Amino acid sequence: MVEQFLKYIHTEKLFHSSQRILLAVSGGADSMLMLHLFTNAGFSVAVAHCNFGLRGGESDGDEQFVAEYCDKHNLAFYVKHFNTQDYAMEKGISIEMAARDLRYAWFDGLLSKHNLDLLATAHHQDDVIETFLINLSRGSGIKGLSGIQPKSGKIIRPMLFTNRTEILEYCQRLKIEFRTDSSNVDTVYKRNLIRQQILPLLEQVNPAFRRNAMKTVGNLHETGQLFQQRMSEIKTWVYSEDDQGAMIHIDKLLTLYPLRTILFELIREFGFQAEQVDDIIDSLTKESGRQFFSGEYRLVKDREYLLISPFLSKQDQVFYIEENCLKINYPIHLSLEIIDRKPDFRFSTHPNVADLDLDKVVFPLILRHWQEGEYFQPLGMTGMKKLSDFFVDEKYSIPDKENIWILASGNQPVWIVGKRLDDRFKITSITKHILRIRME
Amino acid sequence: MVEQFLKYIHTEKLFHSSQRILLAVSGGADSMLMLHLFTNAGFSVAVAHCNFGLRGGESDGDEQFVAEYCDKHNLAFYVKHFNTQDYAMEKGISIEMAARDLRYAWFDGLLSKHNLDLLATAHHQDDVIETFLINLSRGSGIKGLSGIQPKSGKIIRPMLFTNRTEILEYCQRLKIEFRTDSSNVDTVYKRNLIRQQILPLLEQVNPAFRRNAMKTVGNLHETGQLFQQRMSEIKTWVYSEDDQGAMIHIDKLLTLYPLRTILFELIREFGFQAEQVDDIIDSLTKESGRQFFSGEYRLVKDREYLLISPFLSKQDQVFYIEENCLKINYPIHLSLEIIDRKPDFRFSTHPNVADLDLDKVVFPLILRHWQEGEYFQPLGMTGMKKLSDFFVDEKYSIPDKENIWILASGNQPVWIVGKRLDDRFKITSITKHILRIRME
Repeated sequence: MVEQFLKYIHTEKLFHSSQRILLAVSGGADSMLMLHLFTNAGFSVAVAHCNFGLRGGESDGDEQFVAEYCDKHNLAFYVKHFNTQDYAMEKGISIEMAARDLRYAWFDGLLSKHNLDLLATAHHQDDVIETFLINLSRGSGIKGLSGIQPKSGKIIRPMLFTNRTEILEYCQRLKIEFRTDSSNVDTVYKRNLIRQQILPLLEQVNPAFRRNAMKTVGNLHETGQLFQQRMSEIKTWVYSEDDQGAMIHIDKLLTLYPLRTILFELIREFGFQAEQVDDIIDSLTKESGRQFFSGEYRLVKDREYLLISPFLSKQDQVFYIEENCLKINYPIHLSLEIIDRKPDFRFSTHPNVADLDLDKVVFPLILRHWQEGEYFQPLGMTGMKKLSDFFVDEKYSIPDKENIWILASGNQPVWIVGKRLDDRFKITSITKHILRIRME
Repeated sequence: MVEQFLKYIHTEKLFHSSQRILLAVSGGADSMLMLHLFTNAGFSVAVAHCNFGLRGGESDGDEQFVAEYCDKHNLAFYVKHFNTQDYAMEKGISIEMAARDLRYAWFDGLLSKHNLDLLATAHHQDDVIETFLINLSRGSGIKGLSGIQPKSGKIIRPMLFTNRTEILEYCQRLKIEFRTDSSNVDTVYKRNLIRQQILPLLEQVNPAFRRNAMKTVGNLHETGQLFQQRMSEIKTWVYSEDDQGAMIHIDKLLTLYPLRTILFELIREFGFQAEQVDDIIDSLTKESGRQFFSGEYRLVKDREYLLISPFLSKQDQVFYIEENCLKINYPIHLSLEIIDRKPDFRFSTHPNVADLDLDKVVFPLILRHWQEGEYFQPLGMTGMKKLSDFFVDEKYSIPDKENIWILASGNQPVWIVGKRLDDRFKITSITKHILRIRME
């Protein structure tokens, strides 16, 4: 095992023995064996442990276990506690993604702060194959299928020469202690399914399945590099950036194929989704003005170019609704209707419907997020109330508050959309025309 | 189903209704439904059926079934019997590959002969996913993983909008008759394993597995097109062809990465194997003269270039063995040893060992295939015998004969390698030095 390990580092040119390596150590068998192999080989290492606090006392036990090992072996030990759940909610991403983001950002900081050269993670061959199959099952591209490589940037994976079975055998033989992750999150369930049931069957299809799959992943990785070379050329030709944002030359773009993949590669870094690409392609030969939105960017189909520019910030977004507007689809779906007041008119009590006195509002109406220190007069109340107090009463979380839209007339809130009307714009006995706005 | 079928043809731009389509029809559910959909939609079609004779009477039953259907519906019907096994043995390829080669060559001929525009095969979504997993289990590249496309060259796959379950349901509902393939060849076994056991588990990993895997295959296909664009540029830069063969500029090649995939893409069309590529890369920075062989080509590492040139023909290959040569590795492995005759010397009777009287042979020895009309004197016989008669006595097949090597001294056979010595070169009481040649 030691020999294989050293040989792998050598043939893959992972690092020089003079370099200082930061080892990401969870306390599991994979990373504990990696730690053992590094220290026994006499390489210069430091240890980083992430405590995601996702498994309560068990997480703390892991931390203590790794800390004690490092103490005993005189190794620099860094630990950080992460509030994964909050970060995931805030960013609207999965716990898994959140943990990944937080972890690598911290590792990156550690490398520069402590003058370390590379980060080593304990990914092994089974991780590669499991990730391949999970990404395949999710729908993926070449990057997702060939993601875990021996070396990428400042990250090295020196355990890719071996697999889970060998790691466990070797740990047992050398009495290397490790902690077992009892978590039963979705990913773990899927990985167990692949490991225990799917892989054995794939080995019936071909006994050399693992080796061949590893070879395939390697081939895809190299193909991906050539694909990226081609994309760089294309980017140089059709794409440019300035202070305003980025622009893509439409006529040039239209001479290229396959359009779908090319366009997606050009705009994915701005957060646009693969599902939007067909619509954008569709707009290329249509009239100018169509807009597409990602989390933080707007893409506009202009005459010569696709123009991509950032929003100021999500919370600063403002949208205007003109008087003749019947419907808006972004950032939320609203339909507008003007109704002549009939004697038998009954206003709606549905929270998604606002019946307003048309003559009291000023166009264009403004759709925006709430502002600190802002007041409104909740329907049925005679006094004014701070929006922040209203939110407290309604027990809204930070993301809840950020996601709420305010429909305003001038600088007065008219409707906390989907929540509460402002009393000043309600229908009264003298209302002649009703503006009915419905959120869909 | 009909609607989906027509919509798929339309969105994928598979063909115009004015075009004439040749349908590959085995008689199974997939192709019988395809035939039904084409004729019902009123498209102009002809039918091709391959009889590989691999399942005896059952194969003939399939042929008759398709023939009768075409007769009843007044469709042009072409059929051909293939001797798959012979072809596979002759070419040294699998039955599956042989059937594929033969089938597509025949289809190609039919298209031009009968003025047909396109060939339609009945591949559906399950075929795509099964092929993906089989190629993954074998070790593959982007081509193997994204091979089955709606349209490639003159081949269209109009059934890719659907899957096996839907096809069987629809056949049952419409009482479309079909034949069931009872063959239990290796591929069928593997496909059943995937279909019945592996896919249901992958659907537990992600219920949308099939749809997502199809999406992934589509993504890989487009990525592969961009990869090919990059390879074309590289080829233009480092590669050239003339009457002698092809050449690759070594210094230019060495500036590129990833070298392994690039070099393999450049030489694979000459039949070189992925396994040879690392050795060739290794030779790039070494002295000139190293040679590598594929079935029909030789690649020589020269000073400035890798030179690729064809052999005259396999049967015309000639290799020379010099007196000081101890070992050759190509085209077969032979080791040579000179032994001083001792009184107790016993010549070997092993068929892979030839003990010859060194003073009777002339160097360089020649290693070549046999020639028509050639004679030798089999060990132990006093008269000459035609090699062709010897082969008949030994019941050799054509490929057997083609694969046999003759070691000759001048124009006299010395050893039918691995089979029989020539009596004229055997060790006698007066032999002083023995040339022992061993085939490994």
